[in-house]
Amino acid sequence: MNRKAFAAANVMLFALAAGPASAQTTATPPAAVLEDFKPSSLNQPGQLYPQVNSQGYARFRVVAPDAQAIKVSLGLGGSGGTTLAKGADGVWTGTTGGPLDQGFHYYHLTIDGGVFNDPGAQNYYGSVRWESGIEIPATDQDFYALKPVPHGNVQQILFHSPSTNTERRAFVYTPPGYDKSGKTRYPVLYLQHGWGEDETAWSNQGHANLIMDNLIAEGKTKPFIIVMTYGMTNDVKPGGLNSFDIHPFQTVLVNELIPYVDSHFRTLADQPHRAMAGLSMGGFETKLITLANLNTFGSIGLLSGGTVSMDDVKATPDFAKKVKLVFVSFGSRELDNGKPRFGGDPKANDEALKAAGINSIYYVSPNTAHEFLSWRRSLHELAPRLFKD
Amino acid sequence: MNRKAFAAANVMLFALAAGPASAQTTATPPAAVLEDFKPSSLNQPGQLYPQVNSQGYARFRVVAPDAQAIKVSLGLGGSGGTTLAKGADGVWTGTTGGPLDQGFHYYHLTIDGGVFNDPGAQNYYGSVRWESGIEIPATDQDFYALKPVPHGNVQQILFHSPSTNTERRAFVYTPPGYDKSGKTRYPVLYLQHGWGEDETAWSNQGHANLIMDNLIAEGKTKPFIIVMTYGMTNDVKPGGLNSFDIHPFQTVLVNELIPYVDSHFRTLADQPHRAMAGLSMGGFETKLITLANLNTFGSIGLLSGGTVSMDDVKATPDFAKKVKLVFVSFGSRELDNGKPRFGGDPKANDEALKAAGINSIYYVSPNTAHEFLSWRRSLHELAPRLFKD
Repeated sequence: MNRKAFAAANVMLFALAAGPASAQTTATPPAAVLEDFKPSSLNQPGQLYPQVNSQGYARFRVVAPDAQAIKVSLGLGGSGGTTLAKGADGVWTGTTGGPLDQGFHYYHLTIDGGVFNDPGAQNYYGSVRWESGIEIPATDQDFYALKPVPHGNVQQILFHSPSTNTERRAFVYTPPGYDKSGKTRYPVLYLQHGWGEDETAWSNQGHANLIMDNLIAEGKTKPFIIVMTYGMTNDVKPGGLNSFDIHPFQTVLVNELIPYVDSHFRTLADQPHRAMAGLSMGGFETKLITLANLNTFGSIGLLSGGTVSMDDVKATPDFAKKVKLVFVSFGSRELDNGKPRFGGDPKANDEALKAAGINSIYYVSPNTAHEFLSWRRSLHELAPRLFKD
Repeated sequence: MNRKAFAAANVMLFALAAGPASAQTTATPPAAVLEDFKPSSLNQPGQLYPQVNSQGYARFRVVAPDAQAIKVSLGLGGSGGTTLAKGADGVWTGTTGGPLDQGFHYYHLTIDGGVFNDPGAQNYYGSVRWESGIEIPATDQDFYALKPVPHGNVQQILFHSPSTNTERRAFVYTPPGYDKSGKTRYPVLYLQHGWGEDETAWSNQGHANLIMDNLIAEGKTKPFIIVMTYGMTNDVKPGGLNSFDIHPFQTVLVNELIPYVDSHFRTLADQPHRAMAGLSMGGFETKLITLANLNTFGSIGLLSGGTVSMDDVKATPDFAKKVKLVFVSFGSRELDNGKPRFGGDPKANDEALKAAGINSIYYVSPNTAHEFLSWRRSLHELAPRLFKD
């Protein structure tokens, strides 16, 4: 990429990486906090806290009788978190100063100046560490719920990577019926996590498998395979894109993983049936890799990770002829007057691509920020539009 | 089971459940601690602590400048752990009072009276919570190392369970070549975790998939499928077996999971090609379920989870005719004069079974306790002996 694009991308990466910590709490809390708190669905087995109420407030409870101070990195309060207070029983409790956005949030505790996880919650890899997770039930949570429908499998594969001299891990979603479908071959979506995350994110935080199971059960999408691997993004410090080079990951993905998947799974191993999408820095990677490899990938999805402009189209030989779908999405709270902080005007770009005869989709997730509910919804919108023959 | 067996099992369960906390440190530490500490292989990405030296000492480092006291639940020291000391920089450090046993150990921090995980380490489900994990490199670690050999996959499956009205999770190891082997069918080992653990244990802590990959690459075992699911054991408090009933899990396993696996994977779906094994309370479950279902299971593995006596053989119709293999193992540190605290004399029982013409194997893992290196080694010993036609 040229110097100007590189500098712009550098700024965008910083914005993307910094994103997950923002916009956790709405500004005006309701007058009364309803006392209908229930354990978060992401708690460790048997754990009663953290809890969430019907308004989206979260309540925390931590046992550490001799601690001096405990703060939760979620919700309004001193320097952007919820300060817990110690009760007479030595137990620390506190409630967010307002409702949180619906969906999944990473968080952690600061105890006496150190960062630890909440022993009540399960852990999710984000911010280059295993963080605590909490889920505010979403109005539309049914689309990613675990339901009694036929389920696909999520397979851990280990593939040899000569370029890095490692055995590398990926997760492969195979749709329900894959095991019984004899000689049927399937299209493949390569789906990337964001900065600070890894190949576990789209299954654990994103429920990509359940979103697909439910869409397939309702006949709303063609069954396809999803491959999720580590994007080698986490050595990049926010703002430090000068040290980032897409080529090592591109080599692993295009020269090593794709051939492994095509030789070990029943794939439709051609450009029209191979897509790439990613969230945040994974979208940034997707754009770089797909535009440089349009004979490999036929569809492009950027989820809170930039846009495709007519400048991109013009700079990429045969773009209009080769690309079957451009899908761009953001959470509404990432936009100011319809525009993200960096990376172009997604709506104007979408309209320009449409006018040029390109199959372009632009989706905005209502009332969500740079967080996983935006990306669950984005996958739910993207999947039915992929691989239309 | 009759009242007497029930009471004996009750005592045994308590012993098994209490086991993992014991025998962490040898009594006589070497004279000098070698300063060749390296980060544990189980650390979170980029984390330098905890560390392990070549003698098996572990060193911990925790940032929490305002904490009053931090203790690690591993190693010698006040009330059985390692007390950390705060340095001038506000960082807490400490080294175990002696070398730890080789292999995997669960641990946690007690900070100001509360239980938290070490932010440097990855987490593993044990003791009915996600605990921190640390690995002391074992002399024989090569057999479970990640090596450039053909790898099998570990598949997460979700199966419907009418008896519990849930969608339940299991992990299925399919051997290398499964995807390419056309119509080849494979034997199946159902492999259970212990009390406080879940269906993630045998892959995460046990490296069952890597043990199999390496054995298969060396031509030492026949390729087979391994199925790992949750044994519904964790509502049982140590000593509280009076509330435990094997039947709900037996129903899920025998009536629901096995038919699902046999209809979704290319299995050899008959008794000679179906085995069950388990560690600790999973061995206890294995014994109860296999002896009651000898038309379903042809081989039995009890790993630190009891023995099979001639009384069991005599009380079970057609035992000698139906059972292809009885495999019993313990860690040497679980034994006192060759006997575990409860559950019979494994060596005497093995000899009696052999004398009765039963294919019985007894294995003792050197210098390990009721911990995962005993069970990794036991699987490594068990696998080559299974499914010999």
